[in-house]
Parts: sequence; structure tokens; C-alpha cells
Amino acid sequence: MTVHKPILAVALAPGNDPTAWIEVLQDHLDGHAVMPLADVPDPARVRYVAAWKHEHGTFADFPALDAIFSLGAGVDHLLADTRLPVGVPVVRVVDPDLTNRMSEWVMLHVLLHHRQHRLYDYQQFEKIWDDDAGQPAARDVRVGVMGLGVLGRDAAGKLKSMGFDVAGWSRSPKNLAGVEAFAGSAGLGPFLARTQILVSLLPLTPDTRGILDRSLFEQLARDGHPGGPILINAGRGALQNEADIVAALDDGTLRAATLDVFEREPLPETSPLWHHPGVTITPHNAAISDVAAVATFVADAIERFEDGGPLPHVVDPDRHY
Amino acid sequence: MTVHKPILAVALAPGNDPTAWIEVLQDHLDGHAVMPLADVPDPARVRYVAAWKHEHGTFADFPALDAIFSLGAGVDHLLADTRLPVGVPVVRVVDPDLTNRMSEWVMLHVLLHHRQHRLYDYQQFEKIWDDDAGQPAARDVRVGVMGLGVLGRDAAGKLKSMGFDVAGWSRSPKNLAGVEAFAGSAGLGPFLARTQILVSLLPLTPDTRGILDRSLFEQLARDGHPGGPILINAGRGALQNEADIVAALDDGTLRAATLDVFEREPLPETSPLWHHPGVTITPHNAAISDVAAVATFVADAIERFEDGGPLPHVVDPDRHY
Repeated sequence: MTVHKPILAVALAPGNDPTAWIEVLQDHLDGHAVMPLADVPDPARVRYVAAWKHEHGTFADFPALDAIFSLGAGVDHLLADTRLPVGVPVVRVVDPDLTNRMSEWVMLHVLLHHRQHRLYDYQQFEKIWDDDAGQPAARDVRVGVMGLGVLGRDAAGKLKSMGFDVAGWSRSPKNLAGVEAFAGSAGLGPFLARTQILVSLLPLTPDTRGILDRSLFEQLARDGHPGGPILINAGRGALQNEADIVAALDDGTLRAATLDVFEREPLPETSPLWHHPGVTITPHNAAISDVAAVATFVADAIERFEDGGPLPHVVDPDRHY
Repeated sequence: MTVHKPILAVALAPGNDPTAWIEVLQDHLDGHAVMPLADVPDPARVRYVAAWKHEHGTFADFPALDAIFSLGAGVDHLLADTRLPVGVPVVRVVDPDLTNRMSEWVMLHVLLHHRQHRLYDYQQFEKIWDDDAGQPAARDVRVGVMGLGVLGRDAAGKLKSMGFDVAGWSRSPKNLAGVEAFAGSAGLGPFLARTQILVSLLPLTPDTRGILDRSLFEQLARDGHPGGPILINAGRGALQNEADIVAALDDGTLRAATLDVFEREPLPETSPLWHHPGVTITPHNAAISDVAAVATFVADAIERFEDGGPLPHVVDPDRHY
């Protein structure tokens, strides 16, 4: 009698090649068969799915699923699938490498605004030597981090260690050494009122969709140097209202914005964000998952689970993260 | 009998207005008269000088000088004065604010190269959405800090906490937690051979003048991503050979350079550095002294000295720092 290995199926966005993921996951999981979702010979053998922006509905008919893993930061791409099998745990992958990469990106873009580097780029282009830009000290600059999960906490701590005056905002109260913490809808106004540079690392949930809009920008502190608040978003594009961002930049409600994520990705060529003088764009690569690190996490989680342990970082379907 | 207060004379580079310095220093020093060097009524009353790029020779004839303070980082501008009174201590001002500012600048420019941000600026200009730049993790990037004084140690520690693989080089052996330390001429070759991103925070001394030249660039590691080593200099312009930098960038010996200091400042309009595609320029403002912080340091030092204590951070004339 042939004993078939349990299957881990990999499901990426249409058009993405899963080969690298499959090779590395298979290396870690001798006792399992790792394959593209499309190649599964028998739905009853699929015990696990590892997904990144899969086609919705494609997991509906697997009767033996034990867990669904997200291959990147965030699980909104999974929870948006209304035909996700009911009761199957969704696991957030926590990759320390991804956390470090995100904090690098956040630090770079906070410093780029803080140190007025766009001004110096312009001065270099014009061969202007002028050091007199009234540079404030980091301790006099109030940075606010929205979202205090693994990513937000790491970024807030590193910004603090560079000397910034850092506060954080999250749905439920959090404690962070040296970081003033605000929580819930009651805490949002006071948090925004003291924030000169806003860093969004929020998860996308029904509560946060579209939260980065004009009414929020208008509540930010307006005493930043050289004037006007900064928006930095590396959470999800659907957190932001891009028409509001452009209008807020144009009328001075915002001084500048750095965006890694967009309502539509790739950002359409027609978007006014591309060439807006106040906007810095990166192509949703603030923190790209390291295949090896994520594969190690998924393989470890499966081994521990099959040894009788709990699955790590299971998503609470009510909180959406 | 009129008792004249001892004088602290302020001497800046010709053309610079000393008013702000004088006001803040006078606020801290009730028992002293603070004034511009040019206004001194009686040379015998001048006990202290606070200087930044003063006209050489102008301190030669003060018979009662107890100390000369440098108003910025570095004392090369003082030691280059061959008519400096013999035996009068030269005091380096150590301003924690200046240290933080320098580390901000270093972190910004290391991250800007590490995260290939010039590529993303270009992609934004061309409306290119491409996230596939093979971004390495910070732990796989070897940063080397030359100069492990107060500034170098702070920058090295902060780079380490962002995850970089950091080494340091200094004239005499130093110990830094988590940072591989090289020292002296014997240590320079091995230090350069492992360094992909070189950060110079060296003091200017007879030994370091012109040290950043072709022969040094050729010893740097060539396995950086996406290829070729990076030079970052915020020490002194006279450390670097700018003709060598341009040639090294043109033939690929260097991938890119970020320079805050130059052989001649302001950088002449004719310099090819201004518009070289591999060069990022800031106008010697990586760490501008904060008048209030420096004045506090100088006033504290004078008070302690007059209470019988030692002067802090006195320069060793043989080491030049």
C-alpha cells in the first residue's frame, strides 16, 4: 500500500512563480509534499496552505486543512476571501528579518524628512551651498507610529534610540519603554495632535480601511520644522485615500508623504503621486519577505503542530490580525 | 578700585557674526565679560578664548590665557595656527547634541545606500514599478567606521543596533561591544578588506591628511550589493583626495560617495562632484554645533576649572585630538 505524504500547497497571486517557495519549503519538510495549489492530485491530502494574494475561493474545497499560512506581513489578503474554509486557523508569519527590513525603511524615510534631505538634493542639483536650514534636534521632533504590532514596536524602539520623541497608537493599550502610548478611538485625537511625522504600520481591517484621509491629516501637529506634518505609510494601500493625500499636499495640510503601498498596485502610470514634488515612492518593497526565513518559520510551525503543540500567531478573526 | 571681570573672547572665521555665541555664553557666565576678540580692551584680562576657524596668529599676544575652546567638532582649525600660545590647553567641546546629529546623518546616508534609494528615486522619476533589486539584509552588509572617538563610537553602536555587521578602525586599540575593532597601520588593511560601506569620522591630523585616496579605495571589499564599495565622509575635507574620488567612481573602484566635507569649502562651482551621478553632497552640516549646548559645556568647564578642577577633554598636541 502506498502511503501518500500530506501536502503543503503554495498559492501565490496569479502570474507569480512559486518555484523558489516550493524548493525552500520542501527542503525543510521531508515528510510532506510541497507543490503548487494547481498541481494538487487529491484535495483530501492537503493539510496546509501557504498563500500570498491567492485567487479567492480556491481553498474552499479542501476537507482536511489544518492551517493557512500567510507568506508576507499582513493577513488582509486572506481574510478578504469570503470562501475561506470556516474554522481553519490562519497563521501570521513573524519573520525577524522582515521586521528589521521594515525598521530600516522607516528609519531611512523618517531621517530623510527630518534631515530635510530633499532640500539638499535640490541644492546639490542647483550647486547651492547653504547649511542654514534651521535643523532641529531629533529630541524636538515628535514621531507617531500607528500600529504597535511586532513591526510598529520595533520601529518605535529604534526611532526612540535615535533620539526622536516617539509616541504610538494602537487599537488596544500597549506598553513600550520610553514611548508614550495612545489607544483606541479616544486616544487617536490626542495622538495625532502631538504628531509631526506620522508612520503608519497598521494592519488592514474594517476599522482601519481608509483611515489615512483628510480628516486625519487635519488633526496632525502643524509646528514641525520647516512646517507641516509628514505622512509615511508602509502598512497597506487601502489604509489611505490617495485623492485626499494629493489635495492635502497641494494645500499644505501635509508637507510631504512617503508611500510604499497604494490603493492599486502597481501604482498606475496615471497617478499624480508619481511626479508630485512632495511625494517619495517605493514599490511596496519596504519589507519583502525573505524566502528562507519564512520557510523556516512555516516548517517549524508545522513540525511543532504535528508534535501536538499549538500553532503560533493564529489570527483572531474578530480583530483581523 | 574697579575690578575688571576676566574676559572670554569669541573668535570666529572672518565674516561670521559672533553675537549669538556671545549672548548665550554671557548668560551662563555672570562673573565673566564675554566679547568679540576684536573688542578686547586689555589683552592681559583675556583668560579664555572660544574659537571656530579664527584668523591665525590672533591669540599670540594674550599673556594670561588659561584655555582655548573649540566651538565645533575637531580642533585641526586651532592646531594649524603656528602662533598658538605655547602650553595653553586646547579643549575639545563634547556636545551630546552634536553627537546625536552626526549619528543621524551617518544613519541616513548608510541606509540611503543600503536600501538603494537612488535607484528608487530614479524609478519614481521614470514611473517604473520594480521591487526586485535583490535587497540584502543589514546583517549581510559590512559597514566600517574609521575614527572611534565620541562620534565614531556612537555611530558604530547605532549602526550595529540597526543590524549591520559593523567594524571600526582607530589609531589606538578600542573596545566596543559587538563591533570588531581594528587599530593602527597594521589593522588598516584587514579593516578595509572587509568593509563594503566606509564611514569616515576621523580627526584631521598629519597622519590622516589625504588618507581617503585611491590606494585606500582599492583595498575596500568589492562584494557589496549591487557592486562596489561606498565612501561616506563627514570628518574633514582634507582627509580626502577629490580627484581620486572622481576617478574611482568613474572606473568603478567606488560605487558611490556621500560627502559632507570638501578640500575647499564652500565646494567650488567648478567641482565635478556637484553633478557626478554617484555623489551625494551636503554642505558641511552633518552635525552643526548647537549654540546652547556648546555654551553650557564651555561655561561648566570654566566654572569647574576656577573651582580648582581639571579642564575636560584637553587635546594631546602629539595626537592632534
